[in-house]
Amino acid sequence: MNFLEEKILKDGIIKEGNILKVDSFLNHQIDIDIMDQIAKEFQHRFAGEQITKILTIEASGIAIASVAAMRFNVPVLFAKKSPSVNVDDDKYAAMAYSFTHKCNNQVFVSKKYLSPDDKVLIVDDFMALGSAMLALTDIVEQAGAKVVGIGIAIEKGIQDGGDIIRKKGYHLESIAIVDEMDASTHTIKFREQ
Amino acid sequence: MNFLEEKILKDGIIKEGNILKVDSFLNHQIDIDIMDQIAKEFQHRFAGEQITKILTIEASGIAIASVAAMRFNVPVLFAKKSPSVNVDDDKYAAMAYSFTHKCNNQVFVSKKYLSPDDKVLIVDDFMALGSAMLALTDIVEQAGAKVVGIGIAIEKGIQDGGDIIRKKGYHLESIAIVDEMDASTHTIKFREQ
Repeated sequence: MNFLEEKILKDGIIKEGNILKVDSFLNHQIDIDIMDQIAKEFQHRFAGEQITKILTIEASGIAIASVAAMRFNVPVLFAKKSPSVNVDDDKYAAMAYSFTHKCNNQVFVSKKYLSPDDKVLIVDDFMALGSAMLALTDIVEQAGAKVVGIGIAIEKGIQDGGDIIRKKGYHLESIAIVDEMDASTHTIKFREQ
Repeated sequence: MNFLEEKILKDGIIKEGNILKVDSFLNHQIDIDIMDQIAKEFQHRFAGEQITKILTIEASGIAIASVAAMRFNVPVLFAKKSPSVNVDDDKYAAMAYSFTHKCNNQVFVSKKYLSPDDKVLIVDDFMALGSAMLALTDIVEQAGAKVVGIGIAIEKGIQDGGDIIRKKGYHLESIAIVDEMDASTHTIKFREQ
């Protein structure tokens, strides 16, 4: 069992409705040591890739993206979910459904910050349906840039996101993949990697 | 002139309506070296404080909070703006008006992650009206915890936020304070610190 699987067993909470709460260390309160261990593991799993930019989506993905960026020494770019007075009209956009918020969001990135030369590592803290990650791959490809990999902290293997993304041929690495969980017995089964 | 003031002059864009765009390095694309220099400056300016937690607000504040947390070696906590299936009902909440998004948001933090023992450094990338920062001080105080300081990357001194917060007695440190800016001449005047 790796450090993240151990942390999930120790501090994660399983709730009815296929919900895994990890807000004590991943997506509300953030354990920065765990983040840095995840970043180090991304470095190991994507070694040899010439990454020019790390792309994530607001909000909680920004933490893992920022810590990873310190290790990869590249800029972070985060896709936004809501228009702001500060974003240019000239943007790449895609639709993403949020399992957490039960709604569709248009997510977008200003065109200025992705170019055909970019080799992009997409990262996020959590993946369920994979809809946000597919939206980000769409945005990278609209820019003519290359998705060199997708790094996820926790993948809910119970849901389809990982399968869909792997079948599309992306290099997806998830540090922990939850294949089964049971709220009544408080047990979690991780996929062997 | 410090590193952040130089960066703002180099890459910031002044737009009509008192808008300073810094989305090439601060709040859309993120220059991680600049973030780390800001974090180092926070360490210097809040030296001697016993900080137990860094609090920010989603979304762009999460980047500076995460990088600062690596230097202070404490957890990050970020206030959320929208209810999610993953957040407990038991939370501290306050209202904040967003100058960027022109709307009021309820912002909240799960009660589990703030205790009366906490000494909290609040950080954000940008401050205009100070409404988000006041909401976060309110949340910290609801928990009976202590605000040991507020660290801001760019303060728009043109607007009232900084004055209001300093008058309330908080130890506010802004790395760059914009006292005047002119879209027609593309000039910015920073406050002497």
